[in-house]
Amino acid sequence: MINFEYYTPTKIVFGRGTESRTGELAKAFGAHKALIHYGGKSAVASGLIERVKASLDTAGVAHVELGGVVPNPHLGKVREGIALALREGVDFIIAVGGGSVIDSSKAIGYGAAEPEHDVWELYDDAGTRKPAKCLPIGVVLTIAAAGSEMSSSSVITDEKTGLKRSCKSDLSRPRFAVTNPELTLTLPDWQTQSGCADVLMHTMERWFNASGTLELTDAIAAGLMKTVMKNARILRDHPDCYEARAEVMWASSLSHNGLTGCGSDGGDWSVHKIEHELGGMFDVTHGAGLAAVWGSWARYVMGACLPRFVSFAVQVMGVAPRENDEATALAGIEAMEAYYRSVGMPTNLRELGVQPTDAQIARMAASAASVGGGRIGVVKKLAAADIEAIYRAAL
Amino acid sequence: MINFEYYTPTKIVFGRGTESRTGELAKAFGAHKALIHYGGKSAVASGLIERVKASLDTAGVAHVELGGVVPNPHLGKVREGIALALREGVDFIIAVGGGSVIDSSKAIGYGAAEPEHDVWELYDDAGTRKPAKCLPIGVVLTIAAAGSEMSSSSVITDEKTGLKRSCKSDLSRPRFAVTNPELTLTLPDWQTQSGCADVLMHTMERWFNASGTLELTDAIAAGLMKTVMKNARILRDHPDCYEARAEVMWASSLSHNGLTGCGSDGGDWSVHKIEHELGGMFDVTHGAGLAAVWGSWARYVMGACLPRFVSFAVQVMGVAPRENDEATALAGIEAMEAYYRSVGMPTNLRELGVQPTDAQIARMAASAASVGGGRIGVVKKLAAADIEAIYRAAL
Repeated sequence: MINFEYYTPTKIVFGRGTESRTGELAKAFGAHKALIHYGGKSAVASGLIERVKASLDTAGVAHVELGGVVPNPHLGKVREGIALALREGVDFIIAVGGGSVIDSSKAIGYGAAEPEHDVWELYDDAGTRKPAKCLPIGVVLTIAAAGSEMSSSSVITDEKTGLKRSCKSDLSRPRFAVTNPELTLTLPDWQTQSGCADVLMHTMERWFNASGTLELTDAIAAGLMKTVMKNARILRDHPDCYEARAEVMWASSLSHNGLTGCGSDGGDWSVHKIEHELGGMFDVTHGAGLAAVWGSWARYVMGACLPRFVSFAVQVMGVAPRENDEATALAGIEAMEAYYRSVGMPTNLRELGVQPTDAQIARMAASAASVGGGRIGVVKKLAAADIEAIYRAAL
Repeated sequence: MINFEYYTPTKIVFGRGTESRTGELAKAFGAHKALIHYGGKSAVASGLIERVKASLDTAGVAHVELGGVVPNPHLGKVREGIALALREGVDFIIAVGGGSVIDSSKAIGYGAAEPEHDVWELYDDAGTRKPAKCLPIGVVLTIAAAGSEMSSSSVITDEKTGLKRSCKSDLSRPRFAVTNPELTLTLPDWQTQSGCADVLMHTMERWFNASGTLELTDAIAAGLMKTVMKNARILRDHPDCYEARAEVMWASSLSHNGLTGCGSDGGDWSVHKIEHELGGMFDVTHGAGLAAVWGSWARYVMGACLPRFVSFAVQVMGVAPRENDEATALAGIEAMEAYYRSVGMPTNLRELGVQPTDAQIARMAASAASVGGGRIGVVKKLAAADIEAIYRAAL
């Protein structure tokens, strides 16, 4: 077991009706004036924003608001939020939404806490500057997916360049997250299933590591992935099943707070980086984008990480061992793709609805390879040519 | 799934050599002058206390010290610590030890933060006062057992009356815990195995609940218990196995931080309460005491909670389903007792080395039943007569 740190200070308040506690929690964590940050019409139309405001009013926390966050959240909106937060003297941010809104909130938190710097310096490839401060953040979660409600990471897209980049710091871990599965009962199936794919991928990226077998961490990870797949299938047929929504929502928070990687080398996040290019260029739904490229990545790298692909096949996907490890590993990949198809998720770019040109593939591969200074990958290092081959295999 | 809160702000710094980071961590969490609190000779003789002091010196954190904490830690020592902390202007407590030292530190933290009150009011049966403040606590863990390094609870014995009582509050959750499995490599087997029994029981007490099946939480709980049993057996034969020490140590922290009970009614803590009386009266090792009475409790209550005993048998103990649920449940209890015997843990009071008189049994049963106002138990309510029957069955 490799030395590790595990730090998840976010207070989770889980269950029915818990959004009514937003004000009380914000107050307890020191809020005087909050920026309520959210996405589109549904949060307003459903009355959720009004309920959150009422809760803040009751607790005596002043508030301003900024909606309009889009999937693959934009740097422009972040800059708008920073300006608003500074102008209004905001000391707390309430993210009402999913990963995009939370990530945008984290970026605003960084920018408003250090207004003398350009916030994009924290996200760009150079990565020369690390955040020193962040406004405290609270979350009212509306979709089980990104796990940003307990995570240290934030992903922002510069809409002018199409670059989608991430920043990681414990400073941005939310102080609290209100996670009410009822708020997800009306999600369209595509959003639900893309969310489940995202939850799965956060643990899968950790599972495929170069440090090998762990017992407790692997048991937790396998249990989490099996729980998500089982309940995603239930939700395909019964989207109004609260228990299934609840299992998936709790899994979303645990899948990206670090728990499923404790003691490993942290895993291989190549699939995320390969998908980030698609997200930046074609604005695809993140979880679906991950599902679309995972199989091609897996086949490309499995030879370099056979024991973990075998354990994934057997321990997670329930595959009976085959004649040799390669066959078992491949059967595990095929079982995962069969799962994706069973819940309407794409397993290639065509099914995702994206047809990049040769030039676009080359550009995405070069951009992905540039993250972290030239090569990405842990179980197998990937240069631009490798990533290009993975995109082509996924066509 | 029942609404729940999950709040584990403790920063875990896990692995080899991590005690050298104690000073840096204490400083980061605001310490200026720390009370180093510990137990007996081994922490001093091993050089650990000196290493912790050197680390604090390097970080510029002043310190005083108080050793002498005993298993089933005493109220008298707590009062001594409170007086010392107040006299010396301590603003942080560093617990170097296991559950007893951490629990004593929590009690000192409460008492020093509210010196106008008697700290025992937080622990006594009346439970009329709740803590409002606690000094911040850091931990250097030396045994995998109590999980107090991430938990909200503290158990103290009033050595004058023999009463062993607990206090629960998020205020006492440690700010950080340095958990280095190397520090446990020299533990005697009895301590190692009693520690493993304690780790197991924290998840078992949560498993046996009246709220029924969960998926993710049960998968985590089952994985944790199986990991502990497997590695406890390895440590019986190979006490110097770092990997097994590491699995058990990480399990100890996760077993009592709330994770294995998320979404349930919190479980049934009767076995702890039944053991607390033995601990208060006979000063037995906590984990061994739990093992000694668990089987008798389990047989007494299993009829009231059959589905959870069946799932325990099948999902945790790997028992093949028998002719009916009662038989399956009983086979699970027997498998657990067989495990305890295989690692030298007692499954009754005789093996624990305790032979209470009739009067002592009656006194312990009455005292246990008085906790929480007359009856304890969740899967089955237990009056004093029930608890007496359980003690007798465990003779």
